[in-house]
Amino acid sequence: MTTLKDLGEKNVIEEIARIVGMRVFKGEVLSYPDDAKDLLPKAPRLVVNIDGYGIERLRLPWRDSSDVGWCAITGSVSDIIVKGGTPDAVLIALGLPPDYPLLELRKLAEGIKDAVSYYGVRLIGGDTNSSSEPWIAVATIGFTPAKKPPSRKGLRTGDYIVVTGVYGAMGVVALKGVEVAGRYAWVVEKTKRPVANKELSVVVSSNYRWITASMDVSDGLGYTLLTLSTESGARILLTKPPLYEPGLVDECKRDMECVIKTAMSGGEEYGAVLGVRPEGLSSVLKDLEYYQIPYRLVGRVVDGEPGVFYGDKPLTFASWDQFKGWNHGV
Amino acid sequence: MTTLKDLGEKNVIEEIARIVGMRVFKGEVLSYPDDAKDLLPKAPRLVVNIDGYGIERLRLPWRDSSDVGWCAITGSVSDIIVKGGTPDAVLIALGLPPDYPLLELRKLAEGIKDAVSYYGVRLIGGDTNSSSEPWIAVATIGFTPAKKPPSRKGLRTGDYIVVTGVYGAMGVVALKGVEVAGRYAWVVEKTKRPVANKELSVVVSSNYRWITASMDVSDGLGYTLLTLSTESGARILLTKPPLYEPGLVDECKRDMECVIKTAMSGGEEYGAVLGVRPEGLSSVLKDLEYYQIPYRLVGRVVDGEPGVFYGDKPLTFASWDQFKGWNHGV
Repeated sequence: MTTLKDLGEKNVIEEIARIVGMRVFKGEVLSYPDDAKDLLPKAPRLVVNIDGYGIERLRLPWRDSSDVGWCAITGSVSDIIVKGGTPDAVLIALGLPPDYPLLELRKLAEGIKDAVSYYGVRLIGGDTNSSSEPWIAVATIGFTPAKKPPSRKGLRTGDYIVVTGVYGAMGVVALKGVEVAGRYAWVVEKTKRPVANKELSVVVSSNYRWITASMDVSDGLGYTLLTLSTESGARILLTKPPLYEPGLVDECKRDMECVIKTAMSGGEEYGAVLGVRPEGLSSVLKDLEYYQIPYRLVGRVVDGEPGVFYGDKPLTFASWDQFKGWNHGV
Repeated sequence: MTTLKDLGEKNVIEEIARIVGMRVFKGEVLSYPDDAKDLLPKAPRLVVNIDGYGIERLRLPWRDSSDVGWCAITGSVSDIIVKGGTPDAVLIALGLPPDYPLLELRKLAEGIKDAVSYYGVRLIGGDTNSSSEPWIAVATIGFTPAKKPPSRKGLRTGDYIVVTGVYGAMGVVALKGVEVAGRYAWVVEKTKRPVANKELSVVVSSNYRWITASMDVSDGLGYTLLTLSTESGARILLTKPPLYEPGLVDECKRDMECVIKTAMSGGEEYGAVLGVRPEGLSSVLKDLEYYQIPYRLVGRVVDGEPGVFYGDKPLTFASWDQFKGWNHGV
């Protein structure tokens, strides 16, 4: 079996560059293998992000290395999209063991290639390192014409809460564990390669006047709602569930409390939560429909202390902490 | 002893943000803890880079966690500087074990703060992860007014080769090992916190017409020269050594062959190699002197197959491969 030690650093990088490809736009000068890359702005404002992952920790039993590559790109690109940015370029740092199989490296690169192509971005640089535990960090550079990209802090009383995406599959993983979750074809299908809705960036940038806050659902919908509420100092009152997987109804034996808790738990769903001023609601919803982005109007911001309520009860959900592990909610 | 597991993810991030600080410039909207950051261009062209490191692998016995933080920032910023970019902002992804001591995290953050302050950049975002082996990835975003930042590929026959920086300390580490190297006060002092010369970015951007190629010395001077030669398809003929540490003369028992091999080996020196057209040489040297950047004119590009020669012999040096380890040269 060929491993990275047989290849050496230069060939490892070469292998990734060859599979993923590197694109240089007109007017740009530097390219692989230079240690830095130049690029020309494509809108008046940059939007940038970095996200890191333990490669084995991204690996649900039904995800192969190519799925892991897909997920790593999706996670970083999603943060740009939800702020109204069009992702343009990604930089990747990798840590891999010397005995890592070349075959797995190639699969990882294939998944990165698929994601880069799907999201219309390009790999422009990277760095490889030796590490006993494999890891990947992705930095994305995007551009936005929006004068005021929505932050986490802008929710105001009266705002509508719009949730894009369809929930529940990762909630089953979070609440039931991978063994049980892996028996459901719909859970496996939905969590193998989660997709961030790339058209959402246009909806956010063209409606930035009305979108008071936005955040992508990378750590579970309940956690995202609670974070927006806390950061904004505003109370969210939910009156409807988000869109959820039809399979969830059977899994929960038609108990709506279970459906909602499962939909609110999980992570890596890469839908978005938007706070929208009443005067801009019809424009935002019209644009979401135009781009065929699945969404549900789930509630509003109301007066009161920060917190998320579903009807008259505080919302419960499972959430993940990188250092503490799962908290299964109350 | 307090560890990251006691703190939880949010407090780990909070701790770093508090120590390093986060600056938002006028006209920018997003800031910590948003998952993406906006920034406004400060010159017509962006220059970006990512670099990753195993934290324990950066740790020479005499480097504490704060030195490691310093080194990680320096490595990424250096790549921007050598292309004529002024580094503006850094993004950091961290992988740390749950039992990592809070005290070490704080030291790491202190070193990052020192570097961020020294290089005049700002931390604008980050991400933390759990990892059995600790790692850090740094992405830097800079801007340059240069129409054509120098790549690795531009060397042409007749170019002068200018090397900035003072060499030899990391060469002793590479060739003699850390135990022997650690006995020399000058080696410890020079390698604890290597410094990239931030003024070099102005020299490169204002002389981009004459600078045909540039590369920073992050993997050893010999390796850097050989890479420039290979990538450019041009032969480098050295006629003088670069500036070297005075302590090297004793260490090498006044044998110049040993002095040169040691100066050519190592890494993390963060000087620069520049190829300069004859018609621009006086301008480049004048600017290097104006900014008090130590340099030496070491040779020229000559006709012939790619390769680096010192006088009539091929250059030998030790070089490091992330997956293969040290190659001690011939």
